[in-house]
Amino acid sequence: MEGGKGKLLKIFIGESDRYKGEALYHAIIKKIKEQGLAGATTLRGIEGFGAHSKFRSSLIEVLSSDLPIIIEVVDQEEKIKELIKVISPMVTKGLIVMMNDIDIIKYVK
Amino acid sequence: MEGGKGKLLKIFIGESDRYKGEALYHAIIKKIKEQGLAGATTLRGIEGFGAHSKFRSSLIEVLSSDLPIIIEVVDQEEKIKELIKVISPMVTKGLIVMMNDIDIIKYVK
Amino acid sequence: MEGGKGKLLKIFIGESDRYKGEALYHAIIKKIKEQGLAGATTLRGIEGFGAHSKFRSSLIEVLSSDLPIIIEVVDQEEKIKELIKVISPMVTKGLIVMMNDIDIIKYVK
Repeated sequence: MEGGKGKLLKIFIGESDRYKGEALYHAIIKKIKEQGLAGATTLRGIEGFGAHSKFRSSLIEVLSSDLPIIIEVVDQEEKIKELIKVISPMVTKGLIVMMNDIDIIKYVK
Repeated sequence: MEGGKGKLLKIFIGESDRYKGEALYHAIIKKIKEQGLAGATTLRGIEGFGAHSKFRSSLIEVLSSDLPIIIEVVDQEEKIKELIKVISPMVTKGLIVMMNDIDIIKYVK
Repeated sequence: MEGGKGKLLKIFIGESDRYKGEALYHAIIKKIKEQGLAGATTLRGIEGFGAHSKFRSSLIEVLSSDLPIIIEVVDQEEKIKELIKVISPMVTKGLIVMMNDIDIIKYVK
């Protein structure tokens, strides 16, 4: 990935969402890697509500496996747009946003 | 929430901040839901410093209850601006930023 | 820090990255504070891959010390640009992005 302008994609899903027998967030991360993107990070929230408006909180032990998940990916516009085509059908409940006007200051692997 | 342009609101507070006898971050999440926003996610950091410039680190057991909290909300501009009016008075120490130029790619509930 | 336009800097590194004998993310947070920025937050992801394209997952016990780290800093453009000059040489593997078009709605310390 070169420096310059980029996009940051954010995918908001639930920890318990499944895709073909595995955790959706894990399936997405694998897909992002497969597509050759520069990197991705999965964050787990401690509380939230979302697509199905259910209250998810780590305070409540019972729901601890349904916490909110955010996956973040940064890359150039073209790569992010290709990725959206592949990821979007996997997200049957959730939110996908693309943050525009990002400068890639440094990328070293 | 429809697709198209949106805003991402980020609220940076401390885990130990209180509002009317409960955790501020929890009170804010409830308020966001009450206001009919599409969703919100609370993240807990492992280290940070902020409004009062105190070092917060999960490494130090004693301060483990004062870790940095980030709440993220995505919605259309109008709803985010309405939300700011309600949330802003609740945040007496902290930081609220609005990230412009966000594309809402997909939202399915 | 005053209200108005700002920048959000995001630094993506690994938890096990080191800088002069300490955790890089910890060294960066200290540097940010030293530079007089308004605040910073360190988040630890549960999974990801990045600069060296290695799969990092909290599911795998052995790699639990190499989880992805995101550091977020908000401030005015001038301060963020000064910070980049200082932080950039510390990040020998990783990604630094600057998110433009941010409104600082409220900052109270």
